[in-house]
Amino acid sequence: MPIAEITIYPIGTGSTSVGDFVANCVKVLDEMGLNYQLTPMGTVFEGSLEEIWEAVARIHEIPFKMGCKRVVTTLKIDDRRDKPSSMRSKVEGVERRLGKKL
Amino acid sequence: MPIAEITIYPIGTGSTSVGDFVANCVKVLDEMGLNYQLTPMGTVFEGSLEEIWEAVARIHEIPFKMGCKRVVTTLKIDDRRDKPSSMRSKVEGVERRLGKKL
Amino acid sequence: MPIAEITIYPIGTGSTSVGDFVANCVKVLDEMGLNYQLTPMGTVFEGSLEEIWEAVARIHEIPFKMGCKRVVTTLKIDDRRDKPSSMRSKVEGVERRLGKKL
Amino acid sequence: MPIAEITIYPIGTGSTSVGDFVANCVKVLDEMGLNYQLTPMGTVFEGSLEEIWEAVARIHEIPFKMGCKRVVTTLKIDDRRDKPSSMRSKVEGVERRLGKKL
Repeated sequence: MPIAEITIYPIGTGSTSVGDFVANCVKVLDEMGLNYQLTPMGTVFEGSLEEIWEAVARIHEIPFKMGCKRVVTTLKIDDRRDKPSSMRSKVEGVERRLGKKL
Repeated sequence: MPIAEITIYPIGTGSTSVGDFVANCVKVLDEMGLNYQLTPMGTVFEGSLEEIWEAVARIHEIPFKMGCKRVVTTLKIDDRRDKPSSMRSKVEGVERRLGKKL
Repeated sequence: MPIAEITIYPIGTGSTSVGDFVANCVKVLDEMGLNYQLTPMGTVFEGSLEEIWEAVARIHEIPFKMGCKRVVTTLKIDDRRDKPSSMRSKVEGVERRLGKKL
Repeated sequence: MPIAEITIYPIGTGSTSVGDFVANCVKVLDEMGLNYQLTPMGTVFEGSLEEIWEAVARIHEIPFKMGCKRVVTTLKIDDRRDKPSSMRSKVEGVERRLGKKL
């Protein structure tokens, strides 16, 4: 299952806060029933590629619906097809090597 | 018209060269008839959002078709809706401010 | 305090696994005594700008020391100077808006 | 020689235009005498790692000096040490494969 990270940068809002935008974007993932994790620098989620494309297309529209005139959206997809991968297994793999829980 | 930048990182190929992958990705944009620009760090193109989603979905599969087992694809979309924008106008806007052609 | 996210992509290693590289990069942040969080798609940490530049310079060398011939390192810095910000406060701000802990 | 791409996102400026910020960032690269290329989605330049760290540190401060309260700066470094690489050679390598100039 591919893993994705999405970030949105509303440009020209007049406010340095972006929390309202992020909260509404997270709601899209909630509505879609996708497994996600909010990080300080983006939102990570996992799903099929079809679900990822749909999620990104919907999330990209959120800031515009909230009044933004310009939005930069970034998406990163890590797609590993030689063995099962998940948000949890990726972090646990590093924790195991370090011999501690992060 | 939104502007997008895409990069692909094939992981675990055993070769430090990625030019073959990039060339085949560019062919997708050629086939779709999209306006694009190859930069040293990614490929920039412009199109409707629907065209961007389609292009990314198709390009993301290219390295797998070429034998890769893991691919990281990154996409950045700059979508400005308060005035017309294009790959060319963005660069020219900075050149005008600097008083020179870059 | 600025917040940073770093990712490394070793290119041409012949293995689809990157966990060994990530683990050694995290050790740099441990050695520097920086507060960090491992996510499925990168490592987020906070520190002064001087600490961030030092951390990135040191982490960028890790894969080469482990035998890589080509490395793509990405860094993202979110620097907010109108009010205190932290990895924790950014996530909590969104959780508060959503009325739940993520 | 490593190749870098830098982008800056001023957050909360009240204007959807970022050209003034980009122009001043490019001036830093001019002052440092670095070889660079402006693309529609970022600025690509090449230099030693020391030059790259210095350039990023200086460019990151530009929007703040211009009155911004929050800036997101992204940096990507492609560092290949098994053979010479340059901004020009990377693009030409793909053009050669495609049999045309892009």
